[in-house]
Amino acid sequence: RINPDRLWDSLMEMAKIGPGVAGGNNRQTLTDADGEGRHLFKRWCDAAGLETGIDKMGTMFARREGTDPNALPVYVGSHLDTQPTGGKYDGVLGVLAGLEVIRTLNDLGLKTKHPVVVTNWTNEEGARFAPAMLASGVFAGVHTLDYAYSRKDPDGKTFGDELKRVGWLGDEEVGARKMHAYFEYHIEQGPILEAQNKQIGVVTHGQGLWWLEFTLVGKEAHTGSTPMNMRVNAGLAMARIFEMVQKVAMDNQPGAVGGVGQVKFSPNSRNVLPGTVIFTVDIRSPEQAKLDRMRAAIETEAARIAKELGVGCSVEAVGHFDPVTFDPTLVARVRAAAEKLGYSHMNIISGAGHDACWTARVAPSTMVMCPCVDGLSHNEAEDISKEWAAAGCDVLFHAVAETAEI
Amino acid sequence: RINPDRLWDSLMEMAKIGPGVAGGNNRQTLTDADGEGRHLFKRWCDAAGLETGIDKMGTMFARREGTDPNALPVYVGSHLDTQPTGGKYDGVLGVLAGLEVIRTLNDLGLKTKHPVVVTNWTNEEGARFAPAMLASGVFAGVHTLDYAYSRKDPDGKTFGDELKRVGWLGDEEVGARKMHAYFEYHIEQGPILEAQNKQIGVVTHGQGLWWLEFTLVGKEAHTGSTPMNMRVNAGLAMARIFEMVQKVAMDNQPGAVGGVGQVKFSPNSRNVLPGTVIFTVDIRSPEQAKLDRMRAAIETEAARIAKELGVGCSVEAVGHFDPVTFDPTLVARVRAAAEKLGYSHMNIISGAGHDACWTARVAPSTMVMCPCVDGLSHNEAEDISKEWAAAGCDVLFHAVAETAEI
Ligand SMILES: NC(=O)NCCC(=O)O
Ligand SMILES: NC(=O)NCCC(=O)O
Repeated sequence: RINPDRLWDSLMEMAKIGPGVAGGNNRQTLTDADGEGRHLFKRWCDAAGLETGIDKMGTMFARREGTDPNALPVYVGSHLDTQPTGGKYDGVLGVLAGLEVIRTLNDLGLKTKHPVVVTNWTNEEGARFAPAMLASGVFAGVHTLDYAYSRKDPDGKTFGDELKRVGWLGDEEVGARKMHAYFEYHIEQGPILEAQNKQIGVVTHGQGLWWLEFTLVGKEAHTGSTPMNMRVNAGLAMARIFEMVQKVAMDNQPGAVGGVGQVKFSPNSRNVLPGTVIFTVDIRSPEQAKLDRMRAAIETEAARIAKELGVGCSVEAVGHFDPVTFDPTLVARVRAAAEKLGYSHMNIISGAGHDACWTARVAPSTMVMCPCVDGLSHNEAEDISKEWAAAGCDVLFHAVAETAEI
Repeated sequence: RINPDRLWDSLMEMAKIGPGVAGGNNRQTLTDADGEGRHLFKRWCDAAGLETGIDKMGTMFARREGTDPNALPVYVGSHLDTQPTGGKYDGVLGVLAGLEVIRTLNDLGLKTKHPVVVTNWTNEEGARFAPAMLASGVFAGVHTLDYAYSRKDPDGKTFGDELKRVGWLGDEEVGARKMHAYFEYHIEQGPILEAQNKQIGVVTHGQGLWWLEFTLVGKEAHTGSTPMNMRVNAGLAMARIFEMVQKVAMDNQPGAVGGVGQVKFSPNSRNVLPGTVIFTVDIRSPEQAKLDRMRAAIETEAARIAKELGVGCSVEAVGHFDPVTFDPTLVARVRAAAEKLGYSHMNIISGAGHDACWTARVAPSTMVMCPCVDGLSHNEAEDISKEWAAAGCDVLFHAVAETAEI
């Protein structure tokens, strides 16, 4: 069994870096706080005797040697970056649990045939630079390095420039590493495990996603002296599209979600009808056909709504991944580990995207989940207990150890 | 007649300060650009031999002496501050036309019984600090100085601190000056004069306004892993309230407008359902009863919409003025001047708020309007011709000269 206190202490130590305003964290990718978090993680890896490498996306790899020089490594990881008002566990748990797996192997003096590599993927959240899971996407060959480097944050700074600025641009080619398997441990970020009173989620699938960024162009005009019938109201078009997205998601129940997290009015002044409104629709489903149907319906309806108001409407897909089926052998191994350790468990579909969704394209991959209080995530109040954290880490340890062949 | 070229040259000179991104201006109140614009205006006032004073709200007064030491001055002015993406004429025309009136009096060697004072009111736009017409509101006794100083911009900076920082805090008590009359010349900011092919708007009334700032509190949560039926969606409530405001305004046609110019999602991340949405509803009508009825309907309906979604809803009135009736004697004088000068004219209700709406509470006040292209304002593309500008300035000159008794 892993050491629950050590895992918890590391989580609490990391949470001191980039504190939020309400008990959580703001350690957005490639900010100074992210840089500081990386240094702390590297110090821990050094202390555990690991050999660290960094690739051209800034992804960190910390390797514990195996006994067979020809065996591909087992990777285990997640991300240390957070949302602007994020929790202490989303992503961080997966990285530090990976480290705890290695610390436990060290404690017990266990050798594995395959090396074990803990990984911290850059820009998983996609909050600062869309899309999410950017580095693992490049790793899996889904995006080019140039595409990734050109992504812009809301201030117009590029990913490439910020990676250099923060000092974590490595020299490894992205995707050069080959994986025997990839494991990711994560909090559920949803309410199901808690409601079902299960300690472990055996993750069989992941939902697919589209992020549709709409740009609506109206006529910037005075709110007081512009008669109602002369308005070209991009804000009103946004409101109607928002309601329509809600309807499309509800029409596709169960097995679909849809919403809007980001809206930007320009010039965003109380007495100016906006000239431009940019907002992003987030739709997801575990079913490919349903996801594509929803996207088509939303784009058609949005164009109709905008046209009716005389508003210009363009849409760009700024994020996408297909639904994913995780590797059945690894999934079975996770289930068996939970069973053997006496933890209650159930199969679950990941509602969120994870780096494992991209690694699944290039290596056998799967995930382990633990519950989180009220299903709350992407919220500073995100919470788990030490026992929940430890149970999943135990399962991770056994599944990784078995896959790496102790 | 006034000097059209001199007026136009001054407008173009001022427009060089705080240029916008699309041919207009960003000279928001109490920014460095606003400070620079004030210095230019002061140099012109000095050159015209005027005695300048500044009050504790930063409002600038530039006085040309009259012949009767006991006669109260005739004031003429508007504002030099702009929207973030504002035009070159909104407000600026009124200040520089006031200066042109004085320059013309000087040219002609005309003496007036009453002094004439050109005025630049601070923070008319209300874009940076709500409410609009803040300094004239304090002048008219509607707001206290403490209230005004405590108003915050989106970065949390206060009006009081920024007024000091920019160096335009004066020592005159606000409202200590007594006015014989107040004239304000402004572009219409709406489409009526152009559509009716009139050179001059004789402004008989001004619309009343409410700015209702809604704060909606939902549950910040993951857009992917939070099932539809567990969402407490503040963004969706915003969209529904937006549509409802549109309906209330349409139900009250003619003689009413309603819209939303400012929306702020927090944390405003693509994959986070917003914890808080703050937005401002702007409703106006020239009829007091209708305005109040619209406000009541919107507050009641918004509360119902929010409740249905489980979203917390509070509302603060961050801006308000009642409909105003301008002084009949001054209105008649403006009409007579237009008539005498041979300019086409019509009565008009001001759709926008103006400093004259507040001075009307403490002194006989009225306005002169000229058309603007396409009725467009609060837009960098705002446009007028030199001839339009000059016609209104001629009317202003004659009405002011008559009131100041040449
Ligand atoms: N786990 C997680 O929140 N990832 C961010 C990408 C997403 O929105 O699903
Ligand atoms: N004239 C003008 O745009 N004033 C700003 C206040 C308002 O929104 O009416």
